[in-house]
Amino acid sequence: MDAAEFRRRGREMVDYVADYLENIEQRPVYPDLEPGYLRSLIPSEAPLEPESYEDVMKDCCSSTYSLTTSFLTPACTELETVMLDWLGKMLQLPECFIAGTDGHGGGVIQGTASEATLISLLAARCKAIRRVQATNPEISEAEVLSKLVAYTSEQAHSSVERAALIGGVMMRKVPTDKTYAVGGHMLKQMVEEDKAAGFIPFYFCATLGTTPSCAFDHTTELGPICNDENMWMHIDAAYAGSAFICPEFRPLLNGIEFADSFNFNPHKWLLVNFDCSAMWVKKRTDIIGAFKMEPLYLKHENQESGLVTDYRHWQIPLGRRFRSLKLWFVFRMYGLKGLQAHIRKQVALAKEFESLVRADKRFEICAEVIMGLVCFRLKGSNELNQNLLKKITKSQEIHLVPCQLSGRFVLRFAICARTTESRHIQQAWRHITQLTFELLQEPSH
Amino acid sequence: MDAAEFRRRGREMVDYVADYLENIEQRPVYPDLEPGYLRSLIPSEAPLEPESYEDVMKDCCSSTYSLTTSFLTPACTELETVMLDWLGKMLQLPECFIAGTDGHGGGVIQGTASEATLISLLAARCKAIRRVQATNPEISEAEVLSKLVAYTSEQAHSSVERAALIGGVMMRKVPTDKTYAVGGHMLKQMVEEDKAAGFIPFYFCATLGTTPSCAFDHTTELGPICNDENMWMHIDAAYAGSAFICPEFRPLLNGIEFADSFNFNPHKWLLVNFDCSAMWVKKRTDIIGAFKMEPLYLKHENQESGLVTDYRHWQIPLGRRFRSLKLWFVFRMYGLKGLQAHIRKQVALAKEFESLVRADKRFEICAEVIMGLVCFRLKGSNELNQNLLKKITKSQEIHLVPCQLSGRFVLRFAICARTTESRHIQQAWRHITQLTFELLQEPSH
Repeated sequence: MDAAEFRRRGREMVDYVADYLENIEQRPVYPDLEPGYLRSLIPSEAPLEPESYEDVMKDCCSSTYSLTTSFLTPACTELETVMLDWLGKMLQLPECFIAGTDGHGGGVIQGTASEATLISLLAARCKAIRRVQATNPEISEAEVLSKLVAYTSEQAHSSVERAALIGGVMMRKVPTDKTYAVGGHMLKQMVEEDKAAGFIPFYFCATLGTTPSCAFDHTTELGPICNDENMWMHIDAAYAGSAFICPEFRPLLNGIEFADSFNFNPHKWLLVNFDCSAMWVKKRTDIIGAFKMEPLYLKHENQESGLVTDYRHWQIPLGRRFRSLKLWFVFRMYGLKGLQAHIRKQVALAKEFESLVRADKRFEICAEVIMGLVCFRLKGSNELNQNLLKKITKSQEIHLVPCQLSGRFVLRFAICARTTESRHIQQAWRHITQLTFELLQEPSH
Repeated sequence: MDAAEFRRRGREMVDYVADYLENIEQRPVYPDLEPGYLRSLIPSEAPLEPESYEDVMKDCCSSTYSLTTSFLTPACTELETVMLDWLGKMLQLPECFIAGTDGHGGGVIQGTASEATLISLLAARCKAIRRVQATNPEISEAEVLSKLVAYTSEQAHSSVERAALIGGVMMRKVPTDKTYAVGGHMLKQMVEEDKAAGFIPFYFCATLGTTPSCAFDHTTELGPICNDENMWMHIDAAYAGSAFICPEFRPLLNGIEFADSFNFNPHKWLLVNFDCSAMWVKKRTDIIGAFKMEPLYLKHENQESGLVTDYRHWQIPLGRRFRSLKLWFVFRMYGLKGLQAHIRKQVALAKEFESLVRADKRFEICAEVIMGLVCFRLKGSNELNQNLLKKITKSQEIHLVPCQLSGRFVLRFAICARTTESRHIQQAWRHITQLTFELLQEPSH
């Protein structure tokens, strides 16, 4: 959708809302719908090809689908469940994560990956405490809590450590291999040590696509260890998860069958506006059991039927927004093929940047380029690279965020804007090399 | 703003965004602004009288204020700080809660009151553990955690209990007096008992405007107890807080000077769209200390200067939305007087409904009507009232949510829609009495 079309569609949407407001008194205050009404009305999978904007809006406005009428609340819940099923199928998640199956799992939209990680850790904590107390009824909750140990990669996002801080449990950082990924034996060794010291390993957060270098933990090795040790495995693929809709990238998600929960952010790389973080769990009861509260003013007719998903038990806030509409529009406007094309184009642009870097002997590539991130640096000191970054930031043409890999200061070139083209990559590289030229001319070097 | 004006303004806004998108490549990628730039550019208090939409948009679009240009990130943070100062001044919060003073406090926008409560409890937990360990270095964190006790009213919202569940601490419910409010002696007595039993009271969540009946805890009695006992006092005024902008309701907030944190939801009653929950703390360091994480990829130039508020340390998610823009528009479009008029009108409508109920001898009022909520019931059994509610729900004309007060099933009539007028109140009451008439005709009664 270009700016001209945005202008036209935006005006139509404003009119739609104004019409709604003008007629609000004529609408019933409460829905006359049976739980589960929505699923039978819409396809079970996302469209392969893009649909027309007219078709999407028609479905939105029709009273049958009633996505934006007075029946907002049930539609909000039910569309979320179905959209997460669509998205789960696009990722080829195992059936146990899909709500519309005989399995016990399902998806939910969280605000950010930080919240998804926290929710998974809290659910795991609750499950571990109950399990330990079931076999040792004399042990207090506080005592169990003091023995619980969570694990994550030393390269994991800071929000993982923060989740442990909030949950009041220890977290140990697992060292990574030379690709900055965690392998099975490293986790296994730490778990054995901790068990021998009387601790209770209960949670591992794997990362697929780490923030510093987009490394992929070896989940096919890590998953069986977690399952054997009764440890909850959460997979955080906040950025890279979007790419798993492409068959050629899907093998990176192998091992998901061992996970208890999985999360990625469509708002990062799937053309959905912030915020929209998609999370799936294998057993809904694990999450609900950790948070359920039922005061009278929150009771409703259908809560005992099992037909309605009470998402308030799946998250930290009580209130919810209608974020699944964003998925509904994006999936239908692009189609699976359009979204795959977007991912592939951006990976190709990263590869293009990578070859520019590799062709210049003054630079080196610091981690394998798998997605849309290129980690690179000038051969030389950290100070040299810090000075280059300062020059880049000061010139305000492009924006790079650094990281530290094996003690080295590294620049990160990330492709993220929807509208990025080859000419932007070429222009950015010309700019970087120009600043490098100036930097190396300076007397201090 | 009526539907016609919404239509006109909405179209202008769509054009504004489209223009922005069309020219995005010409904009610098990084702001050239000094931290704190915004505060000096805008007034230090909200306007008393409404301003014109043109004036508000002009400020938004001007490159000087740059609220919606490429300088989004600093504006997002700085406008939030200033808008929370405006709002805090509208509520006449003590100076220590206002960021633009010599105090150590400030405000932040959370998504929901549930998150604000959780954040305050976690900050209190961290502070308590550090305090206990400072005097007893040999005691483990787990041991302190197992002794911590939080308190709240038995009438408090379920999210308060849920916060304790997440934080892994005990929570005790304080019994209320005959107005459903917590008084000082009730809390004092429980705290003394628990201390004698070796526990460590560390947190009390007071409620101003409880969910079931809009009762107000006696914070002027409770505050000094919390201060004496080194207990964090959080005040949750999720719904009623908006009314404190009116001088005649402000006395209900007395006792705020004893609180460590305070929260209410402008999205509930101050004409701001969901979500927008305003939270203030007396000492910023209390909150930041509990959550701070500093990986290299999140470092920025100004973080050591103290001039920039790093709101990511104040909340559960890492990412943030530009929610302060909603406050900016609402404060300026209504002015303080317009917002006060809105609150007063809705309270008057509740009083109008109350007198209709009181004039009908078949009904009784179940709690003092102070804000926009009327708790009432048919004199008679709970079953009778449950049947009345079923009839009301089935007819889909109005929507009531029940509660339980002193073991009695009570109907709650809440004024909340911006457009509610006297005729709606009269119509709702006619509808209720008509259904009551039908109900009492039925053979079973």
